[in-house]
Amino acid sequence: MMKKTHSLITGLCAVAVAAGACVLFPTLAMSDNDDQALITKANALFKPLPDSAALENTPLTPLRVSLGKALFFETRVSSDGRLGCATCHNPAYYGADSLALTVGVHGKQLPRNAHTVFNTPLLIAQHYGGNRASVEEQAYKAVISPLAYGNSTNEQVETKLSQLGYLPLFKAAYPDDAKPVSIENWSKAIGAYERTLLTPAPFDKFLKGDAQALSKTAKLGLDTFINTGCAGCHNGVTVGGQSYQKFGITQDYWLVTGSTPKDAFKGYDKGRFHDTKNEADAFMFKVPQLRNVAVTPPYFHDGSVATLPQAVRVMAQLQLGKQLSDEDVSHIVSFLESLTGEIPADFAKVPALPVAAH
Amino acid sequence: MMKKTHSLITGLCAVAVAAGACVLFPTLAMSDNDDQALITKANALFKPLPDSAALENTPLTPLRVSLGKALFFETRVSSDGRLGCATCHNPAYYGADSLALTVGVHGKQLPRNAHTVFNTPLLIAQHYGGNRASVEEQAYKAVISPLAYGNSTNEQVETKLSQLGYLPLFKAAYPDDAKPVSIENWSKAIGAYERTLLTPAPFDKFLKGDAQALSKTAKLGLDTFINTGCAGCHNGVTVGGQSYQKFGITQDYWLVTGSTPKDAFKGYDKGRFHDTKNEADAFMFKVPQLRNVAVTPPYFHDGSVATLPQAVRVMAQLQLGKQLSDEDVSHIVSFLESLTGEIPADFAKVPALPVAAH
Repeated sequence: MMKKTHSLITGLCAVAVAAGACVLFPTLAMSDNDDQALITKANALFKPLPDSAALENTPLTPLRVSLGKALFFETRVSSDGRLGCATCHNPAYYGADSLALTVGVHGKQLPRNAHTVFNTPLLIAQHYGGNRASVEEQAYKAVISPLAYGNSTNEQVETKLSQLGYLPLFKAAYPDDAKPVSIENWSKAIGAYERTLLTPAPFDKFLKGDAQALSKTAKLGLDTFINTGCAGCHNGVTVGGQSYQKFGITQDYWLVTGSTPKDAFKGYDKGRFHDTKNEADAFMFKVPQLRNVAVTPPYFHDGSVATLPQAVRVMAQLQLGKQLSDEDVSHIVSFLESLTGEIPADFAKVPALPVAAH
Repeated sequence: MMKKTHSLITGLCAVAVAAGACVLFPTLAMSDNDDQALITKANALFKPLPDSAALENTPLTPLRVSLGKALFFETRVSSDGRLGCATCHNPAYYGADSLALTVGVHGKQLPRNAHTVFNTPLLIAQHYGGNRASVEEQAYKAVISPLAYGNSTNEQVETKLSQLGYLPLFKAAYPDDAKPVSIENWSKAIGAYERTLLTPAPFDKFLKGDAQALSKTAKLGLDTFINTGCAGCHNGVTVGGQSYQKFGITQDYWLVTGSTPKDAFKGYDKGRFHDTKNEADAFMFKVPQLRNVAVTPPYFHDGSVATLPQAVRVMAQLQLGKQLSDEDVSHIVSFLESLTGEIPADFAKVPALPVAAH
């Protein structure tokens, strides 16, 4: 519950006190104080979204961004002709795919859930295992991954892109390159596009001082979120996504989530261990960002939990050893809903892709 | 080649003739006459797109159209959670899917090519075999098809739609129905949406009298298209799509297209025969519409031909016993490009779909 802070009084109340009348509007005065205190408390843990997620010295030129957007929706580069970035990062589902476990080429189920693409350039790394340093590296490795796009060499991808008629678009976006159609430029262009996909939310307005941007229950939820300890991991500009943590501190996660062993991991998913082979990384996962969490179910690295209230309960129990009341859960969910952002105006507009030359 | 028509002269030339000067601009005069003659000739075979493809007495209300649009992009109703109307009718590929053979749930390849969705309410029927009478019937049968959406009963679909949070949208669109969430309303709403998807093209302007709407080569191509006999089948408002014809009149089609036998047909695709079991229907297919043909490769019922010039050559040979010159092919392709229409403004904008209630 929100801690009631009475130590500061508003100017209005100060005048009222002087007139002996402050008792007439104590709720208003308390609420304003609480709001200010909560804004201050929140700013110690979180940051509003920046205006841009561009790399230093790498301007997001319109030609690069629009090429990146075309490539984001392009499926003909995959080995079954059906998979593109937008397949797992679908505008219909807030940049995720609504599935528990995402799917690669030829309909093959992969062992983890797909994150939303929004705000990902601001994360510590990409994927639940953090095995991609940047959105650019993710785009690069996905297109030559046998599991994701089903290609295995750079040349395969570059030949397809040329045949599809992309040369003029690459040339325009990277005019100084001797070889414009390259996987390097594929990854840079998609990265440029993804760096435009930020989703400012009511919570950002609140952090910047607009106390009315959050409902009363959302504010109670934010306070509960902080006081319960959630913000120990879910902090920073993306409310998570800035560190790695063990999933299942109080007990094995699958006892609570209903997760099942996966063939790809020869058992339960041990997170970063599968990449590093270091026992210290067992069950360490990137803490997911919580921006847009309310609109991107299902939850966790394997999508094993379907609803947000249940995900909140599971996290409190597994990570903090706490049983939340229904009221606390409901308030926290209300706060998390204030992280649902405005989708970039152009994101949902699918571009008409080049038709291969006759 | 375009027939030169000299019988009519323009007012300008009449004045010039009176002054004995018509020889100074014979090309202009001939061209104007030719254009008018070609417009007249074309209007005897083709019709411009109507303003609306609404069913009689069934208004396309905004609530029905927007529900239909959401359902068009909805994938969670399919048994693998990945297939919706927009999977095969993708805005990125002008309402088709760019594949030779389209794909159903669980990545299973189907035996025929997916048509573009544009202008389909105006066709004689749906599918290459014409086994769906209307866009509404197509939407109805697809969602309970084990091959397409992977469902088998109406109840399965209706339960999923309710769980996904669609009840308020159905109620708003069909307020008088005792049971708003029904497959009947699924099919009506998607039909309402698809009935808005018309793509007026330069050729429509030409038919309405604007001779400049088509380039000179497109006009030569239109004349060649008619004189060669293509318009014998590819006529009407959708330049095809109004009748059934045997594919492969001069010889078996697979000898020219490179088509292969399909398991689903226990051999080569015999078109409507597979539905009717009537030998008279062997190799009878719905004549495809040619609107947007230049931007929806690959071609034919099995996508066996990759490029438009080759498709034009194959058709002339197989259906009309003619070998077209490269020049004729190039002109016809130029005419076909004038059938590429304006995409409805809102079509490519993917709606954010309901998030299942907590």
